Amino acid sequence: MNGRVSSLLTDLYQLTMLQGYLDSHMDEVAVYEFFVRRLPENRNFLVAAGLESVLDYLLHARFSPDELRFLEQTGRFNDRFLHYLENFRFSGDVHAMAEGRVFFADEPILRITAPILEAQFVETRVINLLHYQTLVASKAARVRLAAPGRLLVDFGLRRAHGAEAGLLGARAAFIAGFDGSSNVLAEYRFGIPSYGTMAHSFVQAHDDESSAFEHFAHTQPNNVVLLIDTYDTEAAARKVVELAPRLQGAGIAIRAVRIDSGDLAEHARKVRAILDAGGLTTTHIFASGNLDEYEVAALLEKGAPITGFGVGTRMLTSSDVPYLDCAYKLMEYAGHARRKRSEGKATWPGRKQVYREYDAEGRMAGDTLCLDSEGYSGEPLLELVMKGGRRTERLPTLHDARRLCARELERLPDALRSLDRAGPYPVTISRGLRELAAAVDEHRA
Amino acid sequence: MNGRVSSLLTDLYQLTMLQGYLDSHMDEVAVYEFFVRRLPENRNFLVAAGLESVLDYLLHARFSPDELRFLEQTGRFNDRFLHYLENFRFSGDVHAMAEGRVFFADEPILRITAPILEAQFVETRVINLLHYQTLVASKAARVRLAAPGRLLVDFGLRRAHGAEAGLLGARAAFIAGFDGSSNVLAEYRFGIPSYGTMAHSFVQAHDDESSAFEHFAHTQPNNVVLLIDTYDTEAAARKVVELAPRLQGAGIAIRAVRIDSGDLAEHARKVRAILDAGGLTTTHIFASGNLDEYEVAALLEKGAPITGFGVGTRMLTSSDVPYLDCAYKLMEYAGHARRKRSEGKATWPGRKQVYREYDAEGRMAGDTLCLDSEGYSGEPLLELVMKGGRRTERLPTLHDARRLCARELERLPDALRSLDRAGPYPVTISRGLRELAAAVDEHRA
Repeated sequence: MNGRVSSLLTDLYQLTMLQGYLDSHMDEVAVYEFFVRRLPENRNFLVAAGLESVLDYLLHARFSPDELRFLEQTGRFNDRFLHYLENFRFSGDVHAMAEGRVFFADEPILRITAPILEAQFVETRVINLLHYQTLVASKAARVRLAAPGRLLVDFGLRRAHGAEAGLLGARAAFIAGFDGSSNVLAEYRFGIPSYGTMAHSFVQAHDDESSAFEHFAHTQPNNVVLLIDTYDTEAAARKVVELAPRLQGAGIAIRAVRIDSGDLAEHARKVRAILDAGGLTTTHIFASGNLDEYEVAALLEKGAPITGFGVGTRMLTSSDVPYLDCAYKLMEYAGHARRKRSEGKATWPGRKQVYREYDAEGRMAGDTLCLDSEGYSGEPLLELVMKGGRRTERLPTLHDARRLCARELERLPDALRSLDRAGPYPVTISRGLRELAAAVDEHRA
Repeated sequence: MNGRVSSLLTDLYQLTMLQGYLDSHMDEVAVYEFFVRRLPENRNFLVAAGLESVLDYLLHARFSPDELRFLEQTGRFNDRFLHYLENFRFSGDVHAMAEGRVFFADEPILRITAPILEAQFVETRVINLLHYQTLVASKAARVRLAAPGRLLVDFGLRRAHGAEAGLLGARAAFIAGFDGSSNVLAEYRFGIPSYGTMAHSFVQAHDDESSAFEHFAHTQPNNVVLLIDTYDTEAAARKVVELAPRLQGAGIAIRAVRIDSGDLAEHARKVRAILDAGGLTTTHIFASGNLDEYEVAALLEKGAPITGFGVGTRMLTSSDVPYLDCAYKLMEYAGHARRKRSEGKATWPGRKQVYREYDAEGRMAGDTLCLDSEGYSGEPLLELVMKGGRRTERLPTLHDARRLCARELERLPDALRSLDRAGPYPVTISRGLRELAAAVDEHRA
């Protein structure tokens, strides 16, 4: 979170396997790929996110003297292996889809090529970082599609699953098109605009709702958003109208009111009428309270006069789909393609690439999943981003990722932009890949 | 994660409200309580967890010079407020339920009494810590109830929502009765036993499954758990039987085999028969692969000969209930009880206590939610754990919390121990509390 996360944040089996490889001098080059096995029912597409934090992790993965002493005293590891860990550095190559890229089932979004000890060791944290950020970006993109042109603010920190989820979730939502976050650390660390004004407790702590509003307006004159549902929403809206002229006298405008409970559409309509009748036609209505893409879409469909939404818990926990069926799997070792055949979990072997075709209007028309060695037409989606443990060049900025995602959402076929389940996007498995899978099976049979 | 999490990990509105309070010299004592508004459909009870990390946060909450410079350059805050933050310390009192305690809707598990600037500021991180750990402990307790006497290991790190979720989730599961975790950092930081042996990639990296097994056994002779579902589960079990005598010659026993895919009950039965026929009657069968309390219960009901389970993603994401409807609300300010009346979100005012009665067999018989000033019979569940910003005494250890939770699960009424929805546990609202709520409403009306 603040700086380095311990290298002990890993599954024990990574370390026991590594010692196994080292003991038997198995350290040829391995190729692993991260992909999602199948799309969840409620997702027509996914949005890649988390690459920046993965590369940062790979650049800085080390074992500290304290961590090494701890591993030594567990009695599980031999000196040779501990010495190996002491000098551990990631020295491999990474190919990846850019953050903000739309992708589908079976398509790798990250490929790591490195000596097997390194490529295996990083599995746990690579999945931990890519899975969560991709999960949230994919959810947030649906909210963005449901609310075109509206202000969208991430409110999810408090019920996100821990500190890192709150921080990286804010970042993933920003990539997917959110305008900002309530999370101040997201502004400090990533420059994501932070938003927020008052909680119910601020109103409750005052003896009187009007004085809470007036008091707040004077302390934050450039950011007057008043929370009006602590006691009676419409009564509070009338208090706002009464207050407005006094504030105007002091040069303060009421930018918005926020409603956080009850029937949001109904309240918004009534509050809009009260504000308009009181001359506050430019004061926005901002809504929050257990929202997600379905609630937001329903509110807008009903014509609720809401111009901004705070979307929190359900987005940062991706509550309808709280995890993806993703994997980081060995595809090649020592020059030979590998394939897992476990029931329901078989993988396509070898180093892969994804090519995407577009139709005449620039919409995505179909992908081909093929071997990296095959040449296909279309746009190749995986690019080299790290070579020999170093970044190859300037990585896209967070704003680049956000722009790419916006363009990707525009290029989606209309059916996939719907919140409803749409027929699958066409992903063709190349002939070379099918032949390689058959050859690997034959060799194993 | 490693040490301090930034104090900027907060919602912007905490800071804007604080400046508001400071500007108008409002810094009387406030009382806030954390509680869950209603139990999710799939939870008959909840298990309190996260207190230790909350107290640690309160003890160390500070603003660094870098963080203060950042806040200054946003232009949102005045010098007086920045100076206040420079000297920020939490100086309040904390009453709380012990970690591992079973609790129900509306019952506060934490009460903070402090000058309002401090008590308000800590809201975001207090919720972020208590919500997630309580969520996971409550889920893990159900897995424990579904698998009495079985070895239970947390496998959730990779798909947990970030680093902190992986670490604190392992701790919450351990409190609720798990035996350990795959997460090495959880052992390093909390002394939670770590478990793990090999992944499919270890088998795949070898040309031959038998040599992968043999090789692994020699490198981890005290921890031989062989993963047998990479290609063909029953065929692999026969390879294990063939290998056993050679390993026995070297003094190595095969402790267990692990199955991670397919029909686990069916595979376990067939594998058990193969192992038994081969004389490996003491070799355990360990199962994993998208398990939760429902899957575990179904496997045991079918009589599957499985003695241990790895439970991962669905537990650390609490996938059927990925968030709780929890809140941290102002209950009293400057000696006056406060109450929020927002639709569907009304709260009970005042400083509260929970008393629990037990029946003749020691089972929980009913709780009373009352004012702290009322005296009721039964066991009071909230205790003073921090006074004037300092811990009052030795806090229970992690093992104390785990023992308390085990005892709590034993004391649950039978109906609540079921995975099915049971009638609600009786929580009575005291007369004093009802009268106070009415009085507060009248004052506001």
